[in-house]
Amino acid sequence: MLLAMLAVALPVSISAAPAPHDLLPAPAQLAFAEGRLPVTAEFSVSLRGHDDARLRAGLSRALRRWEERTGFTFARTPQAEFVLASDTSRAALVVECSAAGSALPTLGEDESYSLEVSPAQAVLRAPNVVGALRGFETLLQLLQRDARGWFVPVVKIQDAPRFPWRGLMIDVCRHWQPMEVLKRNLDGMALVKLNVLHLHLTEDQGFRIESKTHPRLHELGSDGLYFTQDQIREIIAYAAARGIRVVPEFDMPGHATSWAVAYPELASAPGPYVIERGWGIFDPVLDPTNEKVYALLEDFLGEMAALFPDPYLHIGGDENNGKHWNANARIQAFIREHDLKDNEGLHATFNRRVRDILTKHGKKMVGWDEILHPDLPQDAIVHSWRGPTGLAAAAKAGHAAILSNGYYIDLCYSAADHYRNDPLPADTAIPLAEQSRILGGEATMWAEWVSPETIDSRIWPRTAAIAERLWSPRDVNDVADMYRRLAIVSQRLEETGLNHERNRPAMLRRLAGDGASAEDLENLRIFVEAVEPVKGYERGRYHAEHRQATPLTRVADCARPESNTAREFTVAVDRLLGGARRPDGHSAAALQELREQLLAWQAAGLEVADLLTQRALLGRDSAPVAKSLAEASAVGLAALEAIARGDARDPAWRTEQFTVLERAAEPHDAVQLPALGAIRRLVTAAAP
Amino acid sequence: MLLAMLAVALPVSISAAPAPHDLLPAPAQLAFAEGRLPVTAEFSVSLRGHDDARLRAGLSRALRRWEERTGFTFARTPQAEFVLASDTSRAALVVECSAAGSALPTLGEDESYSLEVSPAQAVLRAPNVVGALRGFETLLQLLQRDARGWFVPVVKIQDAPRFPWRGLMIDVCRHWQPMEVLKRNLDGMALVKLNVLHLHLTEDQGFRIESKTHPRLHELGSDGLYFTQDQIREIIAYAAARGIRVVPEFDMPGHATSWAVAYPELASAPGPYVIERGWGIFDPVLDPTNEKVYALLEDFLGEMAALFPDPYLHIGGDENNGKHWNANARIQAFIREHDLKDNEGLHATFNRRVRDILTKHGKKMVGWDEILHPDLPQDAIVHSWRGPTGLAAAAKAGHAAILSNGYYIDLCYSAADHYRNDPLPADTAIPLAEQSRILGGEATMWAEWVSPETIDSRIWPRTAAIAERLWSPRDVNDVADMYRRLAIVSQRLEETGLNHERNRPAMLRRLAGDGASAEDLENLRIFVEAVEPVKGYERGRYHAEHRQATPLTRVADCARPESNTAREFTVAVDRLLGGARRPDGHSAAALQELREQLLAWQAAGLEVADLLTQRALLGRDSAPVAKSLAEASAVGLAALEAIARGDARDPAWRTEQFTVLERAAEPHDAVQLPALGAIRRLVTAAAP
Repeated sequence: MLLAMLAVALPVSISAAPAPHDLLPAPAQLAFAEGRLPVTAEFSVSLRGHDDARLRAGLSRALRRWEERTGFTFARTPQAEFVLASDTSRAALVVECSAAGSALPTLGEDESYSLEVSPAQAVLRAPNVVGALRGFETLLQLLQRDARGWFVPVVKIQDAPRFPWRGLMIDVCRHWQPMEVLKRNLDGMALVKLNVLHLHLTEDQGFRIESKTHPRLHELGSDGLYFTQDQIREIIAYAAARGIRVVPEFDMPGHATSWAVAYPELASAPGPYVIERGWGIFDPVLDPTNEKVYALLEDFLGEMAALFPDPYLHIGGDENNGKHWNANARIQAFIREHDLKDNEGLHATFNRRVRDILTKHGKKMVGWDEILHPDLPQDAIVHSWRGPTGLAAAAKAGHAAILSNGYYIDLCYSAADHYRNDPLPADTAIPLAEQSRILGGEATMWAEWVSPETIDSRIWPRTAAIAERLWSPRDVNDVADMYRRLAIVSQRLEETGLNHERNRPAMLRRLAGDGASAEDLENLRIFVEAVEPVKGYERGRYHAEHRQATPLTRVADCARPESNTAREFTVAVDRLLGGARRPDGHSAAALQELREQLLAWQAAGLEVADLLTQRALLGRDSAPVAKSLAEASAVGLAALEAIARGDARDPAWRTEQFTVLERAAEPHDAVQLPALGAIRRLVTAAAP
Repeated sequence: MLLAMLAVALPVSISAAPAPHDLLPAPAQLAFAEGRLPVTAEFSVSLRGHDDARLRAGLSRALRRWEERTGFTFARTPQAEFVLASDTSRAALVVECSAAGSALPTLGEDESYSLEVSPAQAVLRAPNVVGALRGFETLLQLLQRDARGWFVPVVKIQDAPRFPWRGLMIDVCRHWQPMEVLKRNLDGMALVKLNVLHLHLTEDQGFRIESKTHPRLHELGSDGLYFTQDQIREIIAYAAARGIRVVPEFDMPGHATSWAVAYPELASAPGPYVIERGWGIFDPVLDPTNEKVYALLEDFLGEMAALFPDPYLHIGGDENNGKHWNANARIQAFIREHDLKDNEGLHATFNRRVRDILTKHGKKMVGWDEILHPDLPQDAIVHSWRGPTGLAAAAKAGHAAILSNGYYIDLCYSAADHYRNDPLPADTAIPLAEQSRILGGEATMWAEWVSPETIDSRIWPRTAAIAERLWSPRDVNDVADMYRRLAIVSQRLEETGLNHERNRPAMLRRLAGDGASAEDLENLRIFVEAVEPVKGYERGRYHAEHRQATPLTRVADCARPESNTAREFTVAVDRLLGGARRPDGHSAAALQELREQLLAWQAAGLEVADLLTQRALLGRDSAPVAKSLAEASAVGLAALEAIARGDARDPAWRTEQFTVLERAAEPHDAVQLPALGAIRRLVTAAAP
């Protein structure tokens, strides 16, 4: 376990020189010059060239966000629209848009723009409205302030994305996520220039979309928690206004319990079926040998093809465990009779039938890794979740492909891990000729462990690091600088209405319970900010009893997926230990900084262990971790003491400290301590 | 100004003995006994007697809230409904409801319930579903925990409201408030047993309801920000499920700019009209001499009468300044020709016509004070906003009446002020025979200075104090105990989804701006928690340039209407100065507590003055208040020093300190320091 922990707490690389800008994602080209364009209450905008409602709405949203940051009220007409300056030469911002572009955002659409800011004027140029929307986001991020006031620095930017498919998938099935979750996350996506919202709409745990042709699907499969078709249209319009495509996923033939609840006769085992309330891979699967399955899909996919305008439609296709196919003699006979070799052959046959239905309705198919098969139609897109090998194999087989392996934000890995995960790294195995088939990637927000209250904190800010990986040039890869800019963009994301920081104090108050003092809450904050949820699929081991209805209100839900405090502590330890030692020993300031952090952890850990045990019952199972934090901090303090004195401790002492740290590394209640690796390195330095 | 400040900072009365329960509103009768009913994951419920969907939905919401507090997952059916115990004798909770009651909540409906908790079982008895819903809220508030686990104490409660009309009015016009604001506030209302949501739907600044008969009204009068009729039906159903009536208000004949934008020919001056973007009392008014006005009202009120099922409909009727009537020769001629005496006579004529339309559509009329006139039909309800005299006059004239004077939560007065404002105080001027005409009251959330981001913090938790005033017996009036329970219920309110605490840290981060350190934010928090917005209608003086579009993101918007810190400081000062002095002087602990608060204010004030001036530009205009906080705290510290030494300062010193405090009392940027009164009393004590 300790080794696993250490892997999580790998030191981040430290940037030599500070990066010159706060933008995230970083633009392709940027050059600052001296000077500033002041932003005042008289800030004025002029439109040159193409002008339409989508552009004006985007501009209005942008100006409103600047009003909210600055407190200014820009001029408006009696109809509450922003006043546009008629004299272009005097406008503070000129937007020069060449054409509308396609009415709905499309894959591969030109998203480029340029931005030229002089002390007199900012000029944003774009070939179409979507490019202008991207430029607005950059301009918004450029706003700064000092004692002289608000301003945008003088700069020239040329920008365009590296990959055309930059997505966020949201699973609205395992835990229902209502409209407002999608809307505020679309605002966040737009802010970091993501352009695909992939909606995972059907699952074992819920059928979350209204079907007018087969209403039993959502009526019996959703507990009443589903999107109406009107709501879907609203989401599509909301996304399109922000230059974001909406790609729906209907997972088949596996992950199909909710289909089978409505139509048990279409499944591969006799049933009866009930909606799945737990987490895992389940057996229910559609029966590809049953013509009625295709008849239903013909109706349903036709209906969905009409509802979702995007040319791409995701059919899932993952994690069919084959058990119900194996157990069904008729299905096995079908495989033999049709020379399909095995279940995979049957799956490929199913996919071809589905592809034919989609083709008829003008849609192209997307599916997870498992759909890759020699028989997979060439125009299907493979969505790789299992690893780089799958991505390369798909490209080699002539398919376009998108990457999600390494972007599983539900697994609580660090932003740095995701950031380093390049779909086409410099040493990629994918030949140059096939590289254009790699369309981009998607962060995937699977929803076993998120509620509407916590989902933003699982998506943001880490997804901004993925957004930069997919938008910015490959050589924008300084992890320390990414973290610096991530803290800034996180603030912008919250200002658009996301709740990733806002909800935590309220959750801690609930955890602490009535009668908690300000001191209790402060200790709890320090503790929760020092821990992380366990990684990967480990949480299921600790909270095996959790079901869909179990409240997500524990310490693991309050904790950030990545602890800022622990990360900064680790960086500081590595700087201390890696730096050239001055003749008079380590910097007293550096030692003091670490000492203070350890003292704070130690004190909070002791108090919180008691609080959680005696009063904050929601967190009782986490109490041992608080105790561990105190004990590990004591080890760190002893090690620091020895380092400061320059007086090496003996191996026996070291072994003793390692034993304490090893015990402290044991997760409880699905939370763990990410700073233990750094403390261990302090011990090693103290007793080399 | 200093005098005004002192009035705000009046010392609260201090309760002699701690109250025995945490419930708010307090029940009519309550008796605790020894023992506890444990609440575990196996908690079970049984329904006895009447059983319907509304009752079950209420029970489900209640159980879900307990799940969220405790982390338990109670048993559910495959259809995700809570499992009900078939064996009543073994259920932890038995709900015994006698009848459905009316399908929609009605004025005067029996809301009583009783609750009997033994160590083995809780029994909730109610004559109807609404009574059971009220009982659920009490039961939820009884949940406690200690090291042994979660429990409900053994108790007997008999409860029923004192007044049948207990409302919250929300103005959705001056600043638009979308669906989610209404929904989360309905949840909050239900929690404190309020039973009327009064929607103020039309105003000079917006016409916020869809009219199908006259769509120009919302199309031209709302900037597209209005409730569709479907949304209104959704709100009515949401409210009804919680036992809450929805009473709509269409303000007429004044406050009518948005009507006049759509139909200038119905107004009393020629126009043209544009939606009003500022705050104040404006001239536009419907023309009561124009038969077309009644034709439109016939259609529109008929439509609204069908949409809103409640028998009461509010027609506003307030603040017609008469200017346009005076300026219109035809209208003045009409008054003379019809012997109406004056504008008031014309207003009464208008009201009678409107009343006739409402009667035809089966509705009873409610209107603000100004509708009271000898000609006002007897069955109209007077809604008193101007003062107790109006309430008494209405009752004397035979009208039923509701009180809002003293419940204007937009004016940022203290919870104690509202709490002390009894519609029928012991010394009421209203004769006993007329007292039953006083139906209750409404907190009024006028929306000049609230956005969806801040509105919860203006409504809650103070409105809970009003809710208790209207529900609980008159002799439940211990202010200190109210504040103790208010802190607890505030936490419950936030847990239902209200944002009154949650949004503040995010607002402070926006105020502080990028690059603010944790220390900056902590100083800013201390400062903002020490200030209050100016009271009454003063804000308009400081922010005269504010329009509808001006962001509400300033220090005044971040600050609580009532500072907890300042209130607690004031209580502590009064305890120190009022208490019997021990032979060895004042308690060292009491002195030390005050000293620490003043030192924290002093340090934060100095830092924040600099932060606001140099970096946090959104708050720059508040910087002098931060400086004043530091200076006033220094005065307080000097006074404490003298008090501690027991060595009286001279009158010249006192004058000097008073001068500093007087300067510090000057509000800036619409914020002021509520603790100055207490500091002044310290100075007086130091130099008597």
